[in-house]
Amino acid sequence: MANERVTSLKDVAGAAGVSVTTVSRLLNGSLELPHETKKRIEDAIRDLNYQPNPHARRLSRGRSDTIGLVVPDIANPFFATLVAAVEEEADRRGLAVSLYATLNRSGREVAYLQLIERNHVDGLIFVTNHPDDGQLGALINRTGKVVVVDEDVPDALAPKLFCDNDRGGYLAGTHLAEMGHRRVLFIGGPERMISAQRRFQGLERAMYELWGADALLLSYKGEYTVAFGREAAKRFIAEGMPASAIFASSDEIAIGLIEVLRSQGISIPQDVSVVGFDDVGPLHLFAPPLTAIRQPVRQIGQRALSLLLETNWQERTPCAVEELLPVEIVVRSSVAPPANPKAAMDKKRTRG
Amino acid sequence: MANERVTSLKDVAGAAGVSVTTVSRLLNGSLELPHETKKRIEDAIRDLNYQPNPHARRLSRGRSDTIGLVVPDIANPFFATLVAAVEEEADRRGLAVSLYATLNRSGREVAYLQLIERNHVDGLIFVTNHPDDGQLGALINRTGKVVVVDEDVPDALAPKLFCDNDRGGYLAGTHLAEMGHRRVLFIGGPERMISAQRRFQGLERAMYELWGADALLLSYKGEYTVAFGREAAKRFIAEGMPASAIFASSDEIAIGLIEVLRSQGISIPQDVSVVGFDDVGPLHLFAPPLTAIRQPVRQIGQRALSLLLETNWQERTPCAVEELLPVEIVVRSSVAPPANPKAAMDKKRTRG
Repeated sequence: MANERVTSLKDVAGAAGVSVTTVSRLLNGSLELPHETKKRIEDAIRDLNYQPNPHARRLSRGRSDTIGLVVPDIANPFFATLVAAVEEEADRRGLAVSLYATLNRSGREVAYLQLIERNHVDGLIFVTNHPDDGQLGALINRTGKVVVVDEDVPDALAPKLFCDNDRGGYLAGTHLAEMGHRRVLFIGGPERMISAQRRFQGLERAMYELWGADALLLSYKGEYTVAFGREAAKRFIAEGMPASAIFASSDEIAIGLIEVLRSQGISIPQDVSVVGFDDVGPLHLFAPPLTAIRQPVRQIGQRALSLLLETNWQERTPCAVEELLPVEIVVRSSVAPPANPKAAMDKKRTRG
Repeated sequence: MANERVTSLKDVAGAAGVSVTTVSRLLNGSLELPHETKKRIEDAIRDLNYQPNPHARRLSRGRSDTIGLVVPDIANPFFATLVAAVEEEADRRGLAVSLYATLNRSGREVAYLQLIERNHVDGLIFVTNHPDDGQLGALINRTGKVVVVDEDVPDALAPKLFCDNDRGGYLAGTHLAEMGHRRVLFIGGPERMISAQRRFQGLERAMYELWGADALLLSYKGEYTVAFGREAAKRFIAEGMPASAIFASSDEIAIGLIEVLRSQGISIPQDVSVVGFDDVGPLHLFAPPLTAIRQPVRQIGQRALSLLLETNWQERTPCAVEELLPVEIVVRSSVAPPANPKAAMDKKRTRG
């Protein structure tokens, strides 16, 4: 069935009894209409077989109806869930998602930020996993239309969305302290990353509240990876298990930690208690089911897209505005009162 | 620093001492060049600050340097890992990835296939999760430039890439049969999906090889979801646990299954043995560590992109060509010889 004449926006507007501007703004997603009006326009589009050429529109208006999403690692269940939530919300609003992973590839974060300048995407939801030397922040400020999510880029004067990391650390610390733990090891992300700093601060504050000067906090800072969790476990054992509880501040770290502890015959929670952070994976099926701080991952994804689309980028005064989404502690079976320290060490020596 | 004159493709070609076509094809990724030549061109691009306008190029040539990736659910760790592998490989080749999830949204699969027709993407890697009534296959055949991955669209005359599902079922069946299981329950995906059919066929063949007519195979077909795993567990218990072993044919099904069995006090492998399929999640940390068939997920993702880019779509005779990637069984601790059936049922009755 060949159309001799291609349907124009004007044809659709005429058929629906509205202005061309109204149809155009509806298609852009920049206008909410009464259901009845919207239906008339959609019917006209369908009946007249109107096919907007996205590329022609893009050149004239610089709008690609695509948002970019930059995450460190898509295979990481936390980021996978975040991506899923953003894509679902984007699709609801008629937008496409271009997905980019930075992994350990240096320079990728900068390259992806340039996508906006080059009109590949209309805006960016940006999750970093490196401490910034200032370059990233400067680029974000120059580009605009970027929402910083999950991890801070300190110099960026952009909307920022994180979970309440400090509160998460505080909930973990309170739980451990109340169970009698005075010596706690924190296994966290890179030292200069805000998430790790805040989780540790919250933990520290809770421990001091209950123990005062008797609290003993140790800290291994590295990557939020399974590999680092394994490394941390080996170090913990090599140092003679200097804490009665461990706050492993991501699912991935917890997985690596538990793998190695288990392989060395160390029992959780009998020999050492463990609290995790994220709670995205099937932690409830672990041996033992893992107590963890839960991040509202899907909420973060949805809210990130809303922020990106609802911010008036032209008129906005560049400033850093932080929004924190609440966390909760999910208590399972990996925390028990501390074993007799001497007994635990003897048990360890016996195993060799 | 304002450029009075915008650098053209011709300027770059002149500076690098090559033809305009050469530069253009290098930028399209459709030409491999000697390293030294490539470097000369890249130097010229950088020194002259050449900025290709991707949208202008797109209109003139229909190339967007973006491939589309359609999966059922990004949060599912299997698909998250697949997406990660495709993105990594795409980035290596200078391509962007537009990601789409179909979830349960009817009509999305058709809508996403139309992205190629509308020039939003250069090609599509397509993972379905519905049986096809023929519409999808017809659309794929009309569109071209689609690689069907993980699950078959039977009428599609396209390159197809799956894991060796039949072999996976066969390995699971052999392991269970060798451990003494004669009565096995298969919990699989939708009945009309090729993956579920082949996994069951392989299981069946292995069981008959060892047990002959004494083999008893039961089958619950549903969705590859945690929810269906839970439902299947409840049905299994309600029917009086009619098998001594369960082949739960995805990580998600296994998770739901184990949750409910555990909450009902049923021990694995003491009361029932379990084998999973996928092995993407942290199955080794479960209680007990789960024996499972492992899919080479990352390999599938990389190979899918290679197929998409290396197929000569203009000259290809439309035909269905299947490529199967090997699976392996990862033996952990969730399979043991069958308990005394009567003893297990008595134990169940006592628990109520």
